[in-house]
Amino acid sequence: MKKVAVILSGCGVYDGSEIYESVLTLLNIEQQGMSYQCMAPNINQLHVINHLSGAVEADQSRNVLIEAARLARGEIIDLAEANPDEYDALIIPGGFGAAKNLSDFAISGSNCSVNPQVLDFTRAIHQAGKPVGLICIAPAMTPLIFGEDAICTIGTDEETAKAIEAMGGKHQSCPVDAVVVDQERRIVTTPAYMLAGSISEAGAGIGKLVEQIKALA
Amino acid sequence: MKKVAVILSGCGVYDGSEIYESVLTLLNIEQQGMSYQCMAPNINQLHVINHLSGAVEADQSRNVLIEAARLARGEIIDLAEANPDEYDALIIPGGFGAAKNLSDFAISGSNCSVNPQVLDFTRAIHQAGKPVGLICIAPAMTPLIFGEDAICTIGTDEETAKAIEAMGGKHQSCPVDAVVVDQERRIVTTPAYMLAGSISEAGAGIGKLVEQIKALA
Repeated sequence: MKKVAVILSGCGVYDGSEIYESVLTLLNIEQQGMSYQCMAPNINQLHVINHLSGAVEADQSRNVLIEAARLARGEIIDLAEANPDEYDALIIPGGFGAAKNLSDFAISGSNCSVNPQVLDFTRAIHQAGKPVGLICIAPAMTPLIFGEDAICTIGTDEETAKAIEAMGGKHQSCPVDAVVVDQERRIVTTPAYMLAGSISEAGAGIGKLVEQIKALA
Repeated sequence: MKKVAVILSGCGVYDGSEIYESVLTLLNIEQQGMSYQCMAPNINQLHVINHLSGAVEADQSRNVLIEAARLARGEIIDLAEANPDEYDALIIPGGFGAAKNLSDFAISGSNCSVNPQVLDFTRAIHQAGKPVGLICIAPAMTPLIFGEDAICTIGTDEETAKAIEAMGGKHQSCPVDAVVVDQERRIVTTPAYMLAGSISEAGAGIGKLVEQIKALA
């Protein structure tokens, strides 16, 4: 059975992993006959957002790995201890955590950098010829991880697409229920909640992303 | 379009709503052509559990409504302000939050009580002849909400079943992919993560629960 590594970035769309995207990723991996292992970096979140009011909770601090453990029912490992040789593929769901914790794209745009553990793990998977899937805003890390001319989508948002192109990536517009595949580099991306108006809309694209990952793994 | 109220109890299996059960409930409601509104009581959680270590974080305090907002992408209302007349049905997902925040079943067993707002809202839905679905450990509240002889399942756990019977309820054993329906009282229950070993196992029962709720609404 093929085993997929899933890197989470917290638990909640505004400061961590987008919950619906993450759960639909795990559900599709399982339904398509593969297994998964969740993992996350053991670092503090950029900040904590009150998901009711949208405000930053300046007096609070939360850890990415500990909060991501909520999304994994405790079955999660520290990304620093994950061995890329044990996996056939990698998927990184979206949510602002991908742009605030796994990278600083939300703050620094095209001048951003990717967390070194995320970079090392993802490159090791990629350099072994295994496929990588990135969902929602996570594809903004594509040029920094996979190098110039890597092809990806974040849907249709022009500002984000321009930032990706400024980092050397190739952005392709894509509807919510579809995926963009960089066949040469084995990268699969889908817009999900960059465009989705409902869970099933996000689910349609994520289902196709997992199908492509399985085909390439 | 039929509209389902969904009462959440936080965000995370050990101190709030079980995330997979909640997301699968919302997904099934949408896929079966209904709409939903998430709601939660504006109260503090019993406690905060570190989902990586399992330990109680004694120095932390979190609010049920604010944390549940993570599961609802911010689209949630205070249960105190929810009008039962606006809904055709109610579903309460599981997770320890149902037994720690919506009731104190996890602490007091068969001597427990149900949060007054949860009790009032659920009884109003029930007394209007509309169906109520309860998932995982949430059915432990059945006898206190619906009165003696109300039929439910929490799967096969003998201790929990005995506590339900001690409160006057009628427990029926049930496999993970099935539901128990109290036709007279329009109550639908399913074991989900009281028994499930995987997301798809939980999803099978939850899909059937939503089907029954739709048929009864």
